[in-house]
Amino acid sequence: MTSSKLIVPRKLSGFMELPPYKQIVLDDMVNKIRSAYQSLGFMPLDTPVLELSEILLAKSGGSIDKEVYNFKKGDTDICMRYDLTVPLARYVAMNSEQISFPFKRYQIGKVYRGERAQKGRFREFIQCDADIVGLDPLSLVADAECLFLVDKVFSNLNLQIINHISNRNILFGICEGLGYKENTENILIILDKLLKIGQDNAKQELIALGVSEENALKLIELTQTSGSFDEIIKKIENLSDNEVFKKGISELKEISSYLKSFNLNTDRYILDIGIIRGQNYYTGTVFEAVIPSHPEFGTVCGGGRYDNLAGYYTDKKLPGVGLSIGLTRLFDLLDQSNMLPEFKLTNLTLQIIPLGETMEECLKLLSYFQNDITCEVNYDNRSFKSKMKEANKKQIPFVLIVGEDEVKSKTYSLKNMTTGEQFKLSKEDCLEKIKEDLK
Amino acid sequence: MTSSKLIVPRKLSGFMELPPYKQIVLDDMVNKIRSAYQSLGFMPLDTPVLELSEILLAKSGGSIDKEVYNFKKGDTDICMRYDLTVPLARYVAMNSEQISFPFKRYQIGKVYRGERAQKGRFREFIQCDADIVGLDPLSLVADAECLFLVDKVFSNLNLQIINHISNRNILFGICEGLGYKENTENILIILDKLLKIGQDNAKQELIALGVSEENALKLIELTQTSGSFDEIIKKIENLSDNEVFKKGISELKEISSYLKSFNLNTDRYILDIGIIRGQNYYTGTVFEAVIPSHPEFGTVCGGGRYDNLAGYYTDKKLPGVGLSIGLTRLFDLLDQSNMLPEFKLTNLTLQIIPLGETMEECLKLLSYFQNDITCEVNYDNRSFKSKMKEANKKQIPFVLIVGEDEVKSKTYSLKNMTTGEQFKLSKEDCLEKIKEDLK
Repeated sequence: MTSSKLIVPRKLSGFMELPPYKQIVLDDMVNKIRSAYQSLGFMPLDTPVLELSEILLAKSGGSIDKEVYNFKKGDTDICMRYDLTVPLARYVAMNSEQISFPFKRYQIGKVYRGERAQKGRFREFIQCDADIVGLDPLSLVADAECLFLVDKVFSNLNLQIINHISNRNILFGICEGLGYKENTENILIILDKLLKIGQDNAKQELIALGVSEENALKLIELTQTSGSFDEIIKKIENLSDNEVFKKGISELKEISSYLKSFNLNTDRYILDIGIIRGQNYYTGTVFEAVIPSHPEFGTVCGGGRYDNLAGYYTDKKLPGVGLSIGLTRLFDLLDQSNMLPEFKLTNLTLQIIPLGETMEECLKLLSYFQNDITCEVNYDNRSFKSKMKEANKKQIPFVLIVGEDEVKSKTYSLKNMTTGEQFKLSKEDCLEKIKEDLK
Repeated sequence: MTSSKLIVPRKLSGFMELPPYKQIVLDDMVNKIRSAYQSLGFMPLDTPVLELSEILLAKSGGSIDKEVYNFKKGDTDICMRYDLTVPLARYVAMNSEQISFPFKRYQIGKVYRGERAQKGRFREFIQCDADIVGLDPLSLVADAECLFLVDKVFSNLNLQIINHISNRNILFGICEGLGYKENTENILIILDKLLKIGQDNAKQELIALGVSEENALKLIELTQTSGSFDEIIKKIENLSDNEVFKKGISELKEISSYLKSFNLNTDRYILDIGIIRGQNYYTGTVFEAVIPSHPEFGTVCGGGRYDNLAGYYTDKKLPGVGLSIGLTRLFDLLDQSNMLPEFKLTNLTLQIIPLGETMEECLKLLSYFQNDITCEVNYDNRSFKSKMKEANKKQIPFVLIVGEDEVKSKTYSLKNMTTGEQFKLSKEDCLEKIKEDLK
């Protein structure tokens, strides 16, 4: 092949691809999230990346969002999944006879959205979801369990969060009570962008919808209400006699008492009536966790309660509550802000370096050590000196030098690359020493 | 929504989707494979599932194999990856300045082949690859390290394998030595299907290619030669004076001595000249591992040495050696043959069951136990009796019953569901007892 035929190697834009030393950190975050999910009895599910278009697009009545990767293979119309919730709904509807409810499942997998590529937006990203799907009615303890889980996940990740919690029935009920039931959805769209557009614009937009100025101000004030559960509930509970509103208050009280039982640190969650979660399917509890030291990260975990998960696929009413973490974006933000744990350039504990014709002895030693510690033999054809330099650069903690004398004496030169100390020891003592130094 | 609008929930055929209790076992296999890869210093890489078509189809000169999922998004021609080797080549070529060679990476991820769906064939399947990519020349120790790794992976999986090893230079050299150099590829295609078509047909096909009957028989006999390295090398080493053949013999001798240094169990690998590995890019060492108790499984792990990984994308000559496990197929075969470890219906250790109005106490207890063991509260609205029945059916090892008396006395009824024993203990003693019983 001549170089004129070479194809320039490049990857698709908007797709994250980490060097291995960063991938180790991402994998470690996945393990910590998985371990939190498992610790509360959530079970793994792994649905295919591809789904039939008629399944994935049921929500939009079959019309294809620009974002969705869609194609035909033979006669089959296929989509790449854009979230893990629709596949969960499909799975639960297909297998509802075998499933024992409440069904607690987690799924950590890649989803695809062909959005316009921009900084911090990825077309392929890892979502880490945990959901509890029950038969109607599903206890509000499930909502509290999800909120507890959010807290546990971020403790595992060593990230300080505040979880902003609300209940959609509060704003639903207020709108209904004020006589705007028909307009609730449009009102919520405006209130949801309050921070972005500012109070004055929000007020004008609400008035344009037919809301009186007085009520517009009331709604805006309520949307900006946040603080401890006890304080905020006390402040707002008599705002309306509407039944939906009262249901919202009662649910918030119940959840608040569960969170106290869980002994959840009150520094890490607040009641925030401004949490709306866009136009999605949530019907009760909603929440968005943020990292208060970095408000510019936005929501790092969100979720809530939905009345009916799989209504497009089954007559069974299956309520649920769940949470989702967009891990690829979170990792990227933490990386940009130097908030990731220190990178390790290698996962090796020991590298064995031959000096002279000692390769076979080195392999024997590798065979011995690899049962207990991660290790390798350096079979590169560079000089001994450059091998030592490389081991140092790679931050390998220990190096074992195996020269021809060492083979005869069966004692080897173990170097602790952090302290610079060097010892001549039998292989058994080398292993002891390494284990000791690692402590 | 009326039921006339319901969409029948189904998934694409040829895509594996496991119930969670089986997914746990598959995830466990992934962890064991990953842990073997990591133990020898292989680092993780996670390339995107989607690649530019010009990259993925470089090998076939841009023509699209029927098997490949290919589509356009806007102006971009995209393919889903069909293996993990081409993405590795692309990655290495793109990042060769940053990579320190030899580059030892593993990747465990899904690949896509739109083959005709049939039993045991999957259109989405997990590949578990480990490769060592070096700068030329890459030591044969790397080949031996891969063979050692194959052994370690299957030990971790508790599966007895025999790894059939050969070197392509043996048959390359023999063909060249007999004067069939131009025809080598066609001859190897016939020899590769020897078992399937039988000796007589193979002989006829070779003769039709222009091979003399005597040489055809020689080639067939050689292809059927297998046994211990020492025995087979002794038997065949004087078959030809061809330089390529002699290189093959010398490489096999060197690898054999490394495998002895590794102290690899000689029951678990043989030299088998019949290992050809189809028409792929291997240029030296080749191997295929089988499970001797289940020959019908075919190859469960294969791999080999290639001279030039990334020749389509860079002028740098990058030789490598690697192995690949098709995990989805292996899992399916083991499942069909009842060779998987026993399924656990839950990953819970403890379920806390309220009896009466004790939910808040239960949540306090959950908050206490979840630091040490996996547990949950049962907040289902069924009767106490049916909850106990369910816990039994789910094989949850321990149940904690929290009635109103228990809340007052701060001692709870712990039931070991395996032995049926029941104890009344403080929460601290419950935890002690559980940990003890688990041992």
